[in-house]
Amino acid sequence: MSDSELPDTGQRTMNYGKEKVAVYRTYGTPLEGIRKIPESDFDGRNNVLFGLEVRVQVEGEEFLPSFSEGDNSMVVATDSMKNFILHHAGEYDGATVEGFLEFVGSLFLETYSQMDAVRMSADELPFDERPVPGSDDFEASDLVFGVSHGESAFGEIYLSRGDDGPVIEEHQSGVTGIELVKVKDNSFVGYVDDEYTTLPERENRTLYVAMDIFWTYADSADALGDDPQRYVPAEQVRDITQTVFHELDVNSIQELIYQTGLQVLERYPQLESVSFEANNRTWIKERDDLDGDAKVLREPPRPTGFQQFSMDRSDLDEEGST
Amino acid sequence: MSDSELPDTGQRTMNYGKEKVAVYRTYGTPLEGIRKIPESDFDGRNNVLFGLEVRVQVEGEEFLPSFSEGDNSMVVATDSMKNFILHHAGEYDGATVEGFLEFVGSLFLETYSQMDAVRMSADELPFDERPVPGSDDFEASDLVFGVSHGESAFGEIYLSRGDDGPVIEEHQSGVTGIELVKVKDNSFVGYVDDEYTTLPERENRTLYVAMDIFWTYADSADALGDDPQRYVPAEQVRDITQTVFHELDVNSIQELIYQTGLQVLERYPQLESVSFEANNRTWIKERDDLDGDAKVLREPPRPTGFQQFSMDRSDLDEEGST
Amino acid sequence: MSDSELPDTGQRTMNYGKEKVAVYRTYGTPLEGIRKIPESDFDGRNNVLFGLEVRVQVEGEEFLPSFSEGDNSMVVATDSMKNFILHHAGEYDGATVEGFLEFVGSLFLETYSQMDAVRMSADELPFDERPVPGSDDFEASDLVFGVSHGESAFGEIYLSRGDDGPVIEEHQSGVTGIELVKVKDNSFVGYVDDEYTTLPERENRTLYVAMDIFWTYADSADALGDDPQRYVPAEQVRDITQTVFHELDVNSIQELIYQTGLQVLERYPQLESVSFEANNRTWIKERDDLDGDAKVLREPPRPTGFQQFSMDRSDLDEEGST
Amino acid sequence: MSDSELPDTGQRTMNYGKEKVAVYRTYGTPLEGIRKIPESDFDGRNNVLFGLEVRVQVEGEEFLPSFSEGDNSMVVATDSMKNFILHHAGEYDGATVEGFLEFVGSLFLETYSQMDAVRMSADELPFDERPVPGSDDFEASDLVFGVSHGESAFGEIYLSRGDDGPVIEEHQSGVTGIELVKVKDNSFVGYVDDEYTTLPERENRTLYVAMDIFWTYADSADALGDDPQRYVPAEQVRDITQTVFHELDVNSIQELIYQTGLQVLERYPQLESVSFEANNRTWIKERDDLDGDAKVLREPPRPTGFQQFSMDRSDLDEEGST
Repeated sequence: MSDSELPDTGQRTMNYGKEKVAVYRTYGTPLEGIRKIPESDFDGRNNVLFGLEVRVQVEGEEFLPSFSEGDNSMVVATDSMKNFILHHAGEYDGATVEGFLEFVGSLFLETYSQMDAVRMSADELPFDERPVPGSDDFEASDLVFGVSHGESAFGEIYLSRGDDGPVIEEHQSGVTGIELVKVKDNSFVGYVDDEYTTLPERENRTLYVAMDIFWTYADSADALGDDPQRYVPAEQVRDITQTVFHELDVNSIQELIYQTGLQVLERYPQLESVSFEANNRTWIKERDDLDGDAKVLREPPRPTGFQQFSMDRSDLDEEGST
Repeated sequence: MSDSELPDTGQRTMNYGKEKVAVYRTYGTPLEGIRKIPESDFDGRNNVLFGLEVRVQVEGEEFLPSFSEGDNSMVVATDSMKNFILHHAGEYDGATVEGFLEFVGSLFLETYSQMDAVRMSADELPFDERPVPGSDDFEASDLVFGVSHGESAFGEIYLSRGDDGPVIEEHQSGVTGIELVKVKDNSFVGYVDDEYTTLPERENRTLYVAMDIFWTYADSADALGDDPQRYVPAEQVRDITQTVFHELDVNSIQELIYQTGLQVLERYPQLESVSFEANNRTWIKERDDLDGDAKVLREPPRPTGFQQFSMDRSDLDEEGST
Repeated sequence: MSDSELPDTGQRTMNYGKEKVAVYRTYGTPLEGIRKIPESDFDGRNNVLFGLEVRVQVEGEEFLPSFSEGDNSMVVATDSMKNFILHHAGEYDGATVEGFLEFVGSLFLETYSQMDAVRMSADELPFDERPVPGSDDFEASDLVFGVSHGESAFGEIYLSRGDDGPVIEEHQSGVTGIELVKVKDNSFVGYVDDEYTTLPERENRTLYVAMDIFWTYADSADALGDDPQRYVPAEQVRDITQTVFHELDVNSIQELIYQTGLQVLERYPQLESVSFEANNRTWIKERDDLDGDAKVLREPPRPTGFQQFSMDRSDLDEEGST
Repeated sequence: MSDSELPDTGQRTMNYGKEKVAVYRTYGTPLEGIRKIPESDFDGRNNVLFGLEVRVQVEGEEFLPSFSEGDNSMVVATDSMKNFILHHAGEYDGATVEGFLEFVGSLFLETYSQMDAVRMSADELPFDERPVPGSDDFEASDLVFGVSHGESAFGEIYLSRGDDGPVIEEHQSGVTGIELVKVKDNSFVGYVDDEYTTLPERENRTLYVAMDIFWTYADSADALGDDPQRYVPAEQVRDITQTVFHELDVNSIQELIYQTGLQVLERYPQLESVSFEANNRTWIKERDDLDGDAKVLREPPRPTGFQQFSMDRSDLDEEGST
């Protein structure tokens, strides 16, 4: 899913970089001291395995001759960028995706004067704890982890060169790859019914939502995790989402988005905004003539409905005032 | 990964069917009464969401004219096969992949006399429980589930037409998509060192194994799950694998396979054989000059080492006698 | 590859829609009357098979209650949007991706007053001609076509509601999925050499480039293809790219981009800008001790270098004045 | 999910190896001297770019201790196997996939006495010629090639250790990834109509077939291409397929398979057998109320009908005698 904004006409796009740089750090710094919220029992992770897939994109007027004249003298090879990221992964002593990006991004600007700005982003490569027999009961293995293909944390940061060093111009945090199915208690009725409508209204459907959630902090420094009490972990936002979904009688994905957004803004006063990209993958009913709520369902055809929505604290105020 | 056995020259291959038939059943029959083993706390699943991706393949001499003469009179359209599977998913009152395949496969043979045999297989489409706030503590939601992209159960069954109805000619159960990383305590040394060898010996490496495990029962009826005490759930075999991996100082994936296989055969006397398809995706060390066991690692190049191995009870006997 | 611009903070993002709507039209209107250029013998296509994968995204203040109150009364179901696109694919009598998007997008705005704007994009689903024996020689079959997984045309258009009907606010055309290998006569030397550099300089390498190219017209009406003499077909831009690649001694992908962009702007005075997203997938040399230019090469590790660059007519002027 | 024949119970499966070893050879030996057939103008390829994705699987009783005892002393690391393949790609002076596999496979057996047998297979990584302006007209560039994602040649060979060196125990050649659409003149009628049937009969449908075709030679030496007059190139078999499809009024994919098989066996007396794996991806009609044969079609739901069928020379005899 991509909004694919068309390019501004004002200024030339000129950048290059490296993407899909997977980096794994074993025995990283644990994430501790996280403030707990009612919807989640997440309060940290041990980072025995800390994996990221990193993208770096650099900008600078001095790169123009590499395009216009084939002059590579200012070019840092993207292979060297990869080496740079891997090397400094050993130096980072923080515990968050965003902190890592700011750490390495700042080093890029400090090391290469031809870079005017650097945009770094990363998807966490997550791992699951795995239970093994312990002295009394099952306990999480400290050695063996499962490779997870579920939700993962996301971070992005755009650093420019300020008078006193690198400055965070933009930032965004997120959790991507949420995929939830709610078995019942979801309706979809009351929409436009015209000559193009063939979808039957459903008072009670099984709803399958895929969702990516992004947020920004009022103070971008809070995104780095140095003060864990002010850091918003992806795991908690995921847990808020599934709790809202569990508790709400959902009229549409749009409504689920809005209620989740309100709850996220409520829980984290340090956030400025939250935004959503959602996909509807709801299965199609094949049989509902079975006992009780039991149904048989099948895969939908491929075309996928999507929603994109952003909210900020004014939505919360408005809601509170009604 | 595929062994891709070349075809026998004796007899003509002639079959057709439907694959990737995803079927979801809500509020299916729970799997209960599973015998517990020391390596796992799995003793059943509620099957509130029971999802399968099914493949059906039918054989029969009467299908020859559809090829040789374009005569479709004996052809059951594969679209109808899909409808058949979806319809009877509402009738199945068991709780296992294998049981479902035997149930629907037998109905195919009973319904269509032109089918001499039917091969059915399925991958479970698994879902995770998701914690939500309960009255006292967090508890698994009974409404919202996560779509899992982790390990899943597998079943395959080949039914022919016997004098007294369908007969299970072959069967296979399995768990596929296991992906485990062990952070340390794995070596790989002592292998052939010649002019083609560039891989350095490693006394202690981070090992990343992807594994599919398959098994057969001495009595194929045990595969169906009607007697849950004799049923081998995929979840337990996965748990044996991660426990063996946790406890063993691993010299190679080959050794991990063998020790896991011994343990599986030991735990389940009702099994005849167990077999493995494994892939080595171990990351490459970038830095090990950090404190303690900490390392930085990177993605390996794409070519992937694999292992295929099968074992039966004679391996257990041999091992026991030494 | 995505630039993933971070969201503006000014205005709320609120839209929804449908993506991956594949639509196939047989015996569509041929594209004829295309102006030929020296780098290409493309002058039209018969559109016996005209396939598109369409994305529609609608905006409008009246959709807010569907989020904030779960009120679906203004919601056009995305399933209906799919039906809308499929139905009107039968009415479109033009021959281009962009024309189709403008045709259907305008109908969306005319049909649904709650839509303030609509963004539509599509990737062509291309097909190859296949030679079959003809009366004298081999000729392209008029019945059988190959499904192509190569380059394809792209279009995007953003329509708002103007006083006299829909207005094209933004547009973009393109060709995506170009993947070219040049066997020799490519160098990569003279780049920054520091402690992070391990890539050896190469005087003569085999270069593998993946490239997407986009362009905008000075007058967006030219994008629709109603005047085929002013339409820029994706096939010709692809052919310019491979011709420039063939003729140029390439110092870097950056240089290939720039020279291709100049040539595109030169050939098509009706274009305002051209932009590039490129990926470097160059293989790694394994042996070059063979006779002549022969080499053995292998797949690179996964991390991928990319370049993003945009140009407009001022680049051409500058170049011409030197 | 694949046909995945269940394992024989007789003998232990024990092998390991490396897969997805991509190897590229520039300026390889051209394939010349191919016998032409009426359905194809293919008579060779220049192999300026010769790419393969190779899989090697080795067997041998001496590998058992690597499993049962963690004893690696007989183990050739799969990383070394990759190096072995890459190195010897520089030595191969033939021009075919099968010849390459036999060349490298024999060297494995000669180099490592612990290997009792080796199974090697490969998919060609194909490239397209690209036209560029020549002195008179457009001609294929000798430097720039397009990466193809279309059909590709396949080969597989199983070598055991004979008294006088390696012996080809089994072999198979093929062409995979054929995807053809025939716009009209295809029917599907007369199939079983019962309570599970919802598919409407179609007198004239647009048919989309994906097909892999495999063949074996009576004398496996002919597969290697040393005598190009007896070699069956994948390109010609693809061309036979599209010609049969073009000329035949097709009642089903089954019929297309059979008629293609007859034609392949007819053209190549040196072949022993031919087999097919086909998939039906036919689009669904959305509108046929347009002028002439024009239609609007859409993507089918995901479940995919398949056919598997093998033929040998006795099919040809039978057909000839009627």
